[in-house]
Amino acid sequence: MITVDTAIKIVTEAVRPLSPKRVHFEDGLGLCLAQDVQSDIDMPPFNRSAMDGYAVIAEDTANVPVELAVIENIAAGYAPTKRVQRGQASKIMTGAATPDGADAVVKFEETESLEPNSRVKILKTAKKGSNISNRGEDMRVGQTVLFKGTPIRPQEIGILATVGKSDVEVFPAPTVGIISTGDELVDVARKPAHVQIRNSNGYSLSAQARRLGADVELLGIVKDTKKEIFDMIQRGLKKDVLIMSGGVSMGEYDLVGEVMKDINTRIYFEKVALRPGKPVIFGRKDDTLIFALPGNPVASFVTFELFIYPAIRKMMGFTAIHRNMMKASLETEIIVKRKRREYRPALFRTQDNVSYVSPVEWHGSADLLSTTRANSLLIVREDIEKYAVGQLIDVMLLPD
Amino acid sequence: MITVDTAIKIVTEAVRPLSPKRVHFEDGLGLCLAQDVQSDIDMPPFNRSAMDGYAVIAEDTANVPVELAVIENIAAGYAPTKRVQRGQASKIMTGAATPDGADAVVKFEETESLEPNSRVKILKTAKKGSNISNRGEDMRVGQTVLFKGTPIRPQEIGILATVGKSDVEVFPAPTVGIISTGDELVDVARKPAHVQIRNSNGYSLSAQARRLGADVELLGIVKDTKKEIFDMIQRGLKKDVLIMSGGVSMGEYDLVGEVMKDINTRIYFEKVALRPGKPVIFGRKDDTLIFALPGNPVASFVTFELFIYPAIRKMMGFTAIHRNMMKASLETEIIVKRKRREYRPALFRTQDNVSYVSPVEWHGSADLLSTTRANSLLIVREDIEKYAVGQLIDVMLLPD
Repeated sequence: MITVDTAIKIVTEAVRPLSPKRVHFEDGLGLCLAQDVQSDIDMPPFNRSAMDGYAVIAEDTANVPVELAVIENIAAGYAPTKRVQRGQASKIMTGAATPDGADAVVKFEETESLEPNSRVKILKTAKKGSNISNRGEDMRVGQTVLFKGTPIRPQEIGILATVGKSDVEVFPAPTVGIISTGDELVDVARKPAHVQIRNSNGYSLSAQARRLGADVELLGIVKDTKKEIFDMIQRGLKKDVLIMSGGVSMGEYDLVGEVMKDINTRIYFEKVALRPGKPVIFGRKDDTLIFALPGNPVASFVTFELFIYPAIRKMMGFTAIHRNMMKASLETEIIVKRKRREYRPALFRTQDNVSYVSPVEWHGSADLLSTTRANSLLIVREDIEKYAVGQLIDVMLLPD
Repeated sequence: MITVDTAIKIVTEAVRPLSPKRVHFEDGLGLCLAQDVQSDIDMPPFNRSAMDGYAVIAEDTANVPVELAVIENIAAGYAPTKRVQRGQASKIMTGAATPDGADAVVKFEETESLEPNSRVKILKTAKKGSNISNRGEDMRVGQTVLFKGTPIRPQEIGILATVGKSDVEVFPAPTVGIISTGDELVDVARKPAHVQIRNSNGYSLSAQARRLGADVELLGIVKDTKKEIFDMIQRGLKKDVLIMSGGVSMGEYDLVGEVMKDINTRIYFEKVALRPGKPVIFGRKDDTLIFALPGNPVASFVTFELFIYPAIRKMMGFTAIHRNMMKASLETEIIVKRKRREYRPALFRTQDNVSYVSPVEWHGSADLLSTTRANSLLIVREDIEKYAVGQLIDVMLLPD
């Protein structure tokens, strides 16, 4: 049986970023750039006033107060028409182009307007260049402003708008199909009969994938027969990622692995030294990655975070492909019974800049309710026998 | 001029969660529950095998090895039909209901199947109750399993599915309208003439709000005239939140505040002791919150995070309404010049469980490109004169 670390390595090495796609730049939010982006303009595009005030010749303000003749009123979006000469000033608004001749802007608060508005009293000496942003100081024509691989956040959206990149190449999010297997499953809207339960994994897995931006289709529930599983897998093979839930443990009706082999899926691994979630199959059939996860809800949840999360992030072109990890001070002693890596639903908190974590109460890998009280998974390593209170332990943070 | 802390307090106290809305439970992902949710079933709904193996009477396994007669084969989804008596066992699959009489399950790995399959050799003594999950141990009929105010994550989606809650009351995300003002602005697809720039704030603000789940409409660009601003504000008043960009500083064409007063907007504040972003107006007109932000891109970005982010989170019913804050060791000395709170684009990193932060190079509040190199905002307090290298400083984390 391979370790969790080996399994994660196998998955991430088997995955490549998807082929780039051109999208409207606003739809790039949350994706990664698949191209470098150059600016088509200088920014600022002209010497620009950073304040509302008066454009002056700095030398004229060497001895203050001094009165200057106001020769023009320059608004943002309009070109100055007059050159400022010694003894003169132009009233200027934030974002407007500074007029020729002027080499500083004195802000309104440091001036006094004189009636009839054609003269201004400057109260404070200006340094050459003050309150003027020089053409091209933030970016220049032809400069690469954003690089391939950059995650597109609101600030990158702003830069794409600034440089007029209305369409842009990105790594798309994968399409994901989800199949739930099990004769015991009924859909949400139905009331389960005595020996049945509702299909919950299909929906929680879908939510995990949707939160990553994936385009998810719930393919539905199949019975534990090779024929039904085979037929549904055919539909799933149209997706970039196929997730199967259930049918992978040692039972006689655990047929998912058999069907995967029947259709010549390349199997990378079938079992991982992990709790919960030992029986997890990872394979590839043509261009589709197939993850067959255990049917227990917590095992399903955890194995998605461990194996499918980094796979999808890598397909989307991210370089940071794993969940954030922290170290935290353990609040409850943990005795390690099994020689398998364990992931336990836990509550992480910080207080006075120190991080703490404690496992939440849970009844094992079927107890999904416990994960609603958790904001993290506490990682119990396979090579440690006991964790004492106060010991630092690894924690995988789960976002809100 | 009020402080940033006071302004944030004013905003969050003025905001109430929006009226709850009933949605299909899958569409609740990322929103908060506006109701308690009860389970309509016990979970597990029956005494359930947690393993593939044999259901036995524990006492029969006191001395191993022992041979038992196999009387039935119970799959998940099917009811057992025979009572297990002394000397007997039923083969059972994970998730299946345990048969009457049996009080333990021995997993396959601890048994040896005997030909012709009608007998099994048990190799390990079983404790009463082992590998059986008792009916109702995770949740009981009528139990409140999720509470009003809970953020709906994938695990909550799984619980809603489990208890058959196919529709659920949530606090919706607000509708947001965005208006960009300025005679100098042209749209992304156009090449700016000499004194123009492209509208970038509209798009970056939209992305900031969309990332929170808001339903955003870019209302467009208006010229700096009271008539155009007035007309566009009428459209914006149909939204829960109206964001205006530009037109709020001291210039003669900064007419946004005037128009807000003309239409009897209740103004909460007009200036905050903040850099970048001093001129920021917060008001309410009927049911619409209006935020008028400065036109400089970094000021626009920062003021959204400080004031609009918590407002939208509170409207959505979250109790955690602010960005995550951390303390980090400063990597560059900072001398404080102004008695205004400063937020600087910064790079936050952790190494060996210690957090570090350093400001990224920037040329002031127009330099949006600097924020693409940042993953956080470093907070320079108004009451401190100097930060030394290694000193702990507050950092607001910005997500990918």
